Amino acid sequence: MDNYLALFTLAGSVLALLFALTRAKNVLSFDEGNDTMKKISGNIRKGAMAYLTRQYRILIIFFVAMFVVLSVMAALGFLTWYVPFAFITGGFFSGLSGFIGMNIATRANARTANACQTGLNKGLRVAFSAGSVMGFTVVGLGLLDISIWYLLLRVVFHESLANTTAAMLTFGMGASSMALFARVGGGIYTKAADVGADLVGKVEAGIPEDDPRNPAVIADNVGDNVGDVAGMGADLYESYVSSIISSCSLGVIAFSAIGDGKLSVSAVAVPMVMAAIGVLASIICSFLVRTGESTDQSTLLKALRRGTNSSAIIIAILAFPLVWAIFGKAYIGFYFAIIAGLLAGVLIGFFTEYFTSDTYKPTQKLAGQSETGSATIIIGGISLGMLSTIAPIIIIAVCVMLAYGLSGGFNDANLGLYGISLAAVGMLSTLGITLATDAYGPIADNAGGIAEMSGLDPEVRRRTDALDSLGNTTAATGKGFAIGSAALTALALIASYVQKVQQIDSDVVLDMTVMNPVVLIGIFVGACLPFVFAAMTMDSVGKAAQSIVKEVRRQFKEIPGLMDGKADADYTKCVDLCTKASLREMILPTVMAILTPIVVGVVLGYNGVIGMLAGATATGFLLAIFMANAGGAWDNAKKYIESGVHGGKGSDAHKAAVVGDTVGDPFKDTSGPSINILIKLLSMVSIVFAGLVVSVHIF
Amino acid sequence: MDNYLALFTLAGSVLALLFALTRAKNVLSFDEGNDTMKKISGNIRKGAMAYLTRQYRILIIFFVAMFVVLSVMAALGFLTWYVPFAFITGGFFSGLSGFIGMNIATRANARTANACQTGLNKGLRVAFSAGSVMGFTVVGLGLLDISIWYLLLRVVFHESLANTTAAMLTFGMGASSMALFARVGGGIYTKAADVGADLVGKVEAGIPEDDPRNPAVIADNVGDNVGDVAGMGADLYESYVSSIISSCSLGVIAFSAIGDGKLSVSAVAVPMVMAAIGVLASIICSFLVRTGESTDQSTLLKALRRGTNSSAIIIAILAFPLVWAIFGKAYIGFYFAIIAGLLAGVLIGFFTEYFTSDTYKPTQKLAGQSETGSATIIIGGISLGMLSTIAPIIIIAVCVMLAYGLSGGFNDANLGLYGISLAAVGMLSTLGITLATDAYGPIADNAGGIAEMSGLDPEVRRRTDALDSLGNTTAATGKGFAIGSAALTALALIASYVQKVQQIDSDVVLDMTVMNPVVLIGIFVGACLPFVFAAMTMDSVGKAAQSIVKEVRRQFKEIPGLMDGKADADYTKCVDLCTKASLREMILPTVMAILTPIVVGVVLGYNGVIGMLAGATATGFLLAIFMANAGGAWDNAKKYIESGVHGGKGSDAHKAAVVGDTVGDPFKDTSGPSINILIKLLSMVSIVFAGLVVSVHIF
Repeated sequence: MDNYLALFTLAGSVLALLFALTRAKNVLSFDEGNDTMKKISGNIRKGAMAYLTRQYRILIIFFVAMFVVLSVMAALGFLTWYVPFAFITGGFFSGLSGFIGMNIATRANARTANACQTGLNKGLRVAFSAGSVMGFTVVGLGLLDISIWYLLLRVVFHESLANTTAAMLTFGMGASSMALFARVGGGIYTKAADVGADLVGKVEAGIPEDDPRNPAVIADNVGDNVGDVAGMGADLYESYVSSIISSCSLGVIAFSAIGDGKLSVSAVAVPMVMAAIGVLASIICSFLVRTGESTDQSTLLKALRRGTNSSAIIIAILAFPLVWAIFGKAYIGFYFAIIAGLLAGVLIGFFTEYFTSDTYKPTQKLAGQSETGSATIIIGGISLGMLSTIAPIIIIAVCVMLAYGLSGGFNDANLGLYGISLAAVGMLSTLGITLATDAYGPIADNAGGIAEMSGLDPEVRRRTDALDSLGNTTAATGKGFAIGSAALTALALIASYVQKVQQIDSDVVLDMTVMNPVVLIGIFVGACLPFVFAAMTMDSVGKAAQSIVKEVRRQFKEIPGLMDGKADADYTKCVDLCTKASLREMILPTVMAILTPIVVGVVLGYNGVIGMLAGATATGFLLAIFMANAGGAWDNAKKYIESGVHGGKGSDAHKAAVVGDTVGDPFKDTSGPSINILIKLLSMVSIVFAGLVVSVHIF
Repeated sequence: MDNYLALFTLAGSVLALLFALTRAKNVLSFDEGNDTMKKISGNIRKGAMAYLTRQYRILIIFFVAMFVVLSVMAALGFLTWYVPFAFITGGFFSGLSGFIGMNIATRANARTANACQTGLNKGLRVAFSAGSVMGFTVVGLGLLDISIWYLLLRVVFHESLANTTAAMLTFGMGASSMALFARVGGGIYTKAADVGADLVGKVEAGIPEDDPRNPAVIADNVGDNVGDVAGMGADLYESYVSSIISSCSLGVIAFSAIGDGKLSVSAVAVPMVMAAIGVLASIICSFLVRTGESTDQSTLLKALRRGTNSSAIIIAILAFPLVWAIFGKAYIGFYFAIIAGLLAGVLIGFFTEYFTSDTYKPTQKLAGQSETGSATIIIGGISLGMLSTIAPIIIIAVCVMLAYGLSGGFNDANLGLYGISLAAVGMLSTLGITLATDAYGPIADNAGGIAEMSGLDPEVRRRTDALDSLGNTTAATGKGFAIGSAALTALALIASYVQKVQQIDSDVVLDMTVMNPVVLIGIFVGACLPFVFAAMTMDSVGKAAQSIVKEVRRQFKEIPGLMDGKADADYTKCVDLCTKASLREMILPTVMAILTPIVVGVVLGYNGVIGMLAGATATGFLLAIFMANAGGAWDNAKKYIESGVHGGKGSDAHKAAVVGDTVGDPFKDTSGPSINILIKLLSMVSIVFAGLVVSVHIF
């Protein structure tokens, strides 16, 4: 029976991919505009593709090396032989998601700018279609990977359900590694280019943003694609897949203890079929996204929200009969766990918007703090970001308690843990459409750049700006989803780790109490990791940005006629510098993330690892929200001032706000969003290397 | 026998207080200088005393209210009747420490300035003597409170050793509450005045720091006293007392299980006698602090380090025969636990210096980041602060493992936990002298202000600046000690909480495993608290500073002749504004710190509380170090630029560094240092209200 359910998931995957294909065709049916626009778009695409090609070339070395390490571990009996292969496919599909999404995004930017010449709604539709390609590619490839492996292990290798889900869990490590490289590398690229271009162009030379005289302008636009599109795609591929496979794994464990084979199958079926339903709901609702010609932000936001909210409602309605049919009435609590997750996602999204959108008080107040200079707006933004952690913490806490309790966790902890993992699946079930609303932002941003550089009518820029500004809000919401689901998935993965350790050696007596010094130290060390990780990635942005600053200054000085528009800037030099710097800087943080759980495990043992994972999840969650919201609020406070308050563009208040925005750049686009991958990668590595740690540890 | 040991502690207390008295007399024997200096010093003293008087008037209401609450709880049987009284004395002595220290500091500022007219060494000696009054008053009053309560409970009320130490533990809550109010209120005051004075005076009007034309200049100098002296005194009183009483309590528990009365007495004796020995060593070594006439920082630092390091060595030597005599050879592991703590303190101090002093690379590199503007130096400082958490985390982790393991924790967990608490005692045993080196900083800072305002020879200002600059380094080291010991003490207090719960109801089965969702959520909520607390206090500084900015601007505009030096500024108005704002703003964060453990306890139960304490301790530790080190590094990067590099004073790089310094102000002097009190207060409140939570909880 379970094989048929996997076919259902496979069908969902194919549906998503076909839909992505139609959206891609739709995007390509639009006209790219005049020759200048085509040329600029071509340069951006060339730069972005060059980056991705070089990134993948480096990562192939990493993946081959890891394949060898994992194969050696498998040969030594610490792992099954599926793991090295699962690891590779996780990485491959994650990378592929980013590649496809970015490819279409770089083809959609000029088309969006051109469509905006006709009208706002047409522009929105092109950009949103391109975003949908990304959203449904991620979902489709994720379900493809899951269903193929499932069928392979069950039908071809005749593995037990428990072994199947355990093996699948490990391909999450491949996806997480890939995602972290992509997020960190892309995040450093985009912010180094952005900060570098702004510091010399806007601040020193006084030329506008996206001015073609700025040698870093193409790099800046390439950055939007490699960071906010390719990086985010790999990131959410990982989130999506991890939530589903950890849920499957915990489900089998929960019911294998009860000893009923049929219920185990049901436990695997629910997350997989939920995902397929999510695809369906997302596709239907993506047709609801359309708008009029008003550039009013709340009208535009309503257009997007109509799509995402309807999709959430459809899923909430369909999930009830689904859970009832698969599990029966006795386990209907799982339905409420799913709904708790879905609701938590919506609520976190709302509070993210509340804290970062200039239609609400916090960001407006922050904008006011620019009147006393950059120091006060910086203090204000840090304070706002820290304060904003309280709502998501409470939401996640309530969600966890509900999901755990309603699933029967207080009678059987394993049921409760499965419930928590289902909440994560529920939260991410609308991913197809939420990711589409998220990915369209950088495309609109790029379209604005192309409109500026090719000298289109200012009205076009006004329209792309309206779309871009909205994109900031949806990006912030998207980050809320990513980190909220990451917290739930990380908790599920910690539970999986505990199960894994006990499965490896049933004699192991876990002492996970907080008063065990090994656990306590684990918590301390784990809590420290996101701080160190954030420091490293911010530092990398700083270093890379410095090299861009020097290069742009050099070109302004050495290329005669550049400032008068008589000579062309050497864009490729900046693109090349960004590529080199970000690829160099992405290695260390990711390698640290992979090595730490192994080192901690070997020194402190599995109890220490559990403490480490709990500590890293808690502070990682907090730090990610703090950084994303502080960054988002600074960005929008600046935009709010540009709308004319506190003296408007060019005033001292605006200058102070620009400093805030620049500080926020690596916060919200490099360090913050990488942390949610970090906490899952730590768990994944711990799970994969559990066999080694159980055999070899000092304490 | 144990009563004699308490007399030994009492003797240590009297010795410390007598020494403080001689130091005070020594300070007062110096001349205050000319009439202008006397007048300025008088104004500062008047403002500082007015603040403290009003603060205490508010806190009396709080303490009376808490006394009533605790009495009701005692009447209901949730507490013993000692608790309300112990609570009051803890608060009283903590406040008294701050009061005495501040009183002498405000009398020493003009004397230091005047002494600097003769020479640097004389200035150092006056300031250091005044700092010693503070150091030894804190230590003396701490030991007085401990020994009086001990003798009272044992000799007058004939309580068992277990009941005695349990009752004493609760007076920590009084001290912690008082300390948090003092730190937060004083911290807001000092930084609101500082930021307000700088923003309008230095940045807008372009007049130098401490210029008498600035209406906020007296408030700024008052702030140094109420924040960096009175606030710090209350803070370290709390740290010192908490470490000793939690150690006594855990010691009795460790050995009552073994069932040997004599060993329990020994366990109480060791921390108490260690403290008395620390007094002796500190007194002896305080005479080693003297210097020549070179203003070279490393020479000056050597002078202070000679005192603190010698004191650590003497204690390390004396502790060995002490532990041997009290416990015998079998338990000599406790000696190594003490040494682990002592060493950890020294190492944390070293790394704090490494990350914040401009003689090392990190701060020098940070100064370089000012060349590309304020945004890059802000990003650089945040990154530096976050990265700097890694060393203290590893040091504390190793210290905990050593203290736990060497004390026999792997055979008997209670012995290990006692060992951890002894490490905290060891770390703080040199407090008398380390606090003296710390408290002298703000005195030198004030002396500089007085020298400036009364128009003394620039050479005098150069000398006070040299002393002040050194004070920044010792202050950073002092914060490292405070937070390091706070982490160890907080861990000991969590252990005490666990014991307390089991003692209240022996049927309670604690499920402290990380996989218990209640514990997990507790960790999440606890981890969030330091973030929220830091946000609230930073916000308060912002609000209070805004009111000062407005007032200073008003005076510049409305008082004719003020800028030409022909009219006097209305200093009292600014002093009054700061006082009101900081007293208003100190309430909410502290009340939140007291209510949260009760709410979390009632909702999540004792297991949730344990998770909360672990989470808060971990992130609190990290956040405190991050904020203190980032703030210290920004401050010193600015000073480094002022010494002539990167364009020196007045350059663009310097302006950028001033922004960094201003952001760092609330980081290092308000939010950061309050967090270490917060994490202990959370534990203390949890312990006091354990009876209630055991009876009433939802989950």
